[in-house]
Amino acid sequence: MNLWENIFKSKKSSAQEAKDRLTLILAHERAINVPYMEAMKQEILEVIKKYTKAQKIDIKTDSNQDFNTLEVEILLQK
Amino acid sequence: MNLWENIFKSKKSSAQEAKDRLTLILAHERAINVPYMEAMKQEILEVIKKYTKAQKIDIKTDSNQDFNTLEVEILLQK
Repeated sequence: MNLWENIFKSKKSSAQEAKDRLTLILAHERAINVPYMEAMKQEILEVIKKYTKAQKIDIKTDSNQDFNTLEVEILLQK
Repeated sequence: MNLWENIFKSKKSSAQEAKDRLTLILAHERAINVPYMEAMKQEILEVIKKYTKAQKIDIKTDSNQDFNTLEVEILLQK
């Protein structure tokens, strides 16, 4: 799980914030044809918003030659 | 994106299979109290199943002292 330690540690601004955060990552190779990806992402985000009543959701998308990724960081309500 | 190359490469059994795969990871620190986590996971999986009409979904959960993770691997229908 060093992967997660690295991801969380590289981003946290305080210990408290780190504890109240969920991270979701969705990834696929660019070569796949997934015409429904946008709609599916939106629906997954709706589910997360509904449950977490999130204060703040940060969404990052990234792509390179091989992969497309969606990274969602949710600051949870206290 | 070396992260994703590593994740995909370490698991693929063939180039074709790698191309037809989506990966979703959900992670949070163990210290967070998220009583709705199970219900939220199930609902996210339902969304994924609905869109992908997946042939096969592998779900792995892992936890250590610091983190809980849910990793979902979806083999897409051709």
